[in-house]
Amino acid sequence: MEESETRRIEEEVRRAVEQAKELQDSASSLVAKASGEEQSMRQRASALDSTIRRLRSSIDSQLAHKLLDPKLADKLEEDLQKARCVIADGDASAFLPSRAQVGFLRMFLGPIDVRASKKDVQLKVKEEYNSYRDRTALLFLLFPLALLILRSWLWHGCLPAFPVQLYQAWLLFLYTGLTLRENILRVNGSDIRPWWIYHHYCAMIMALVSLTWEIKGQPNCAQKQRGVQLFLQWAMMQGIAMLLQNRYQRQRLYTRIALGKAKRMDVVWGETAGVDGQLWLLCPVLFIMQGFEAYVGLLLLRTAFAGVASEWQVVFCGFLLVLMAVGNFVNTVQTLMVKSRFKAKMKKSKSRQELN
Amino acid sequence: MEESETRRIEEEVRRAVEQAKELQDSASSLVAKASGEEQSMRQRASALDSTIRRLRSSIDSQLAHKLLDPKLADKLEEDLQKARCVIADGDASAFLPSRAQVGFLRMFLGPIDVRASKKDVQLKVKEEYNSYRDRTALLFLLFPLALLILRSWLWHGCLPAFPVQLYQAWLLFLYTGLTLRENILRVNGSDIRPWWIYHHYCAMIMALVSLTWEIKGQPNCAQKQRGVQLFLQWAMMQGIAMLLQNRYQRQRLYTRIALGKAKRMDVVWGETAGVDGQLWLLCPVLFIMQGFEAYVGLLLLRTAFAGVASEWQVVFCGFLLVLMAVGNFVNTVQTLMVKSRFKAKMKKSKSRQELN
Repeated sequence: MEESETRRIEEEVRRAVEQAKELQDSASSLVAKASGEEQSMRQRASALDSTIRRLRSSIDSQLAHKLLDPKLADKLEEDLQKARCVIADGDASAFLPSRAQVGFLRMFLGPIDVRASKKDVQLKVKEEYNSYRDRTALLFLLFPLALLILRSWLWHGCLPAFPVQLYQAWLLFLYTGLTLRENILRVNGSDIRPWWIYHHYCAMIMALVSLTWEIKGQPNCAQKQRGVQLFLQWAMMQGIAMLLQNRYQRQRLYTRIALGKAKRMDVVWGETAGVDGQLWLLCPVLFIMQGFEAYVGLLLLRTAFAGVASEWQVVFCGFLLVLMAVGNFVNTVQTLMVKSRFKAKMKKSKSRQELN
Repeated sequence: MEESETRRIEEEVRRAVEQAKELQDSASSLVAKASGEEQSMRQRASALDSTIRRLRSSIDSQLAHKLLDPKLADKLEEDLQKARCVIADGDASAFLPSRAQVGFLRMFLGPIDVRASKKDVQLKVKEEYNSYRDRTALLFLLFPLALLILRSWLWHGCLPAFPVQLYQAWLLFLYTGLTLRENILRVNGSDIRPWWIYHHYCAMIMALVSLTWEIKGQPNCAQKQRGVQLFLQWAMMQGIAMLLQNRYQRQRLYTRIALGKAKRMDVVWGETAGVDGQLWLLCPVLFIMQGFEAYVGLLLLRTAFAGVASEWQVVFCGFLLVLMAVGNFVNTVQTLMVKSRFKAKMKKSKSRQELN
């Protein structure tokens, strides 16, 4: 019996070795075949992509030289837009020419490819990004609120260093995560405006700098901590704005998906198009927040140049806040302009359809 | 002529729309087919993987009950090891059951899959990781060296806050990049010892904490900055150790690849097996460094408890350094033991072959 058991194991080991070789061979041929097919699909997709581009620009130039009927041009452009959506929204999108991996991702992750090959994975990434932002926005509101409440109730108007630094470290982690995710979304074909990523780079650097900024205690706590206090108030406002934006954007996204007009990979922080009712609420909040951001920045710069707090961190953070406020303002206005132009066009096309 | 041009564009647009639909259809069917094939390949790989595991444990148990000739058992185990290498080193490795994505990557990147499907990409990732470590080690040596030299030549024994904080921020960025890359390597099947990743988590946290640590100036600079100075000296030693390790490990890796014994995804910080000549240099350096690490940690703890510097950062960093030193020591010893056991086994198998 011992003998036969030994022979059985020997036989099984031999078979396992054979199977390993077979598996390796079929894996090799599968990988080779798949990459060949992928290659040819990529070529087709990229050829079609450039054809659509070429046709668009030739329609534009013909229109400019009045060689084309404007109505016909509109219709043709709509057709091309639809064709673009068909390939960008479906499985074909995985084969479209990829946006080059950004330096930021390379810096942190090395040359790994973060492109999801399947549409459903891409969508999962997007969904997770949205829910990450939701959770974040809530903390964005509650964390500084807790600090400010504890400051007046428990700490007698003088913030201790540790909880503030914990908050700053959390901000640093948060913004690093956000920028990494946004860059990944961009590689996966999202149309997120570059500014919103730059904005998060700035916020990341500011969180890092604020960590090195000493939180001074008694005496004259209220005066010395004026900057921190303003910063926390601004952060709370940002939390509210983020919650509004997220809500607004989800609705807009789902509406647009339902209308078949959008790629679901669109992420547009602070962009404002679609759900008009909420826009009346969101827009003023955004502008007030940007104003307050610039105000905090200028206040920091003033304290620095008045000699109250002369650390370089004060000047740096002040400058960065003003820069971010201006950038946010410019980009929000641009987005609003794009939106109103889009609306005008939609109206025109609608009235044309009614005329016909 | 205008008429015909218009008709040509209309025709081209129509064709582009058609092509988009065709492309989308073939992309869908290609993706569906590929994921089906992948699925079946995954099943085969995972079945074979568990067969090999089962055979190994049954050989072990038979050997324990003396039902199997030890020589035969050794041979069978070698065969199984080879079979494992065949699937783990080749294209089949992409279909082996994946190690679950670690929480750390999820936290920063979301649910994106960082597994490279092609073996050559995996190897590129590994190569890039090695060269990243090389560049890093050099900076690790030069950055603190420059600070220490400038301290005595230019700054009269008193480090200014900004360059030190810049260095700390760089450390934070560096360790974040390293841990992200190592986690990616692990997902891609590398056998890196978990401790070396934990070690980098600790280093990351320490860099973050050290950023909040105020760098005090005059008077009594030398005494107040004693901790920073020791830390910089330790960092320099670590730079040297890293350079030695990298050199040693590349050689060992290439030797092992040449011998066909290793998966090329192995990353073993501080592991010490193979190139015996250099081991004599590397081992003492590693142990001295670990001793120095513990010494710096204890010194920090002493200054904290003696009341010289009572910030929580001092206690925390001191504790972390001691923990890291102990962990490094334990893991280096374990690796050395594994290595000597492996060597003994190799000798036995060699002498057996000579006997036969």
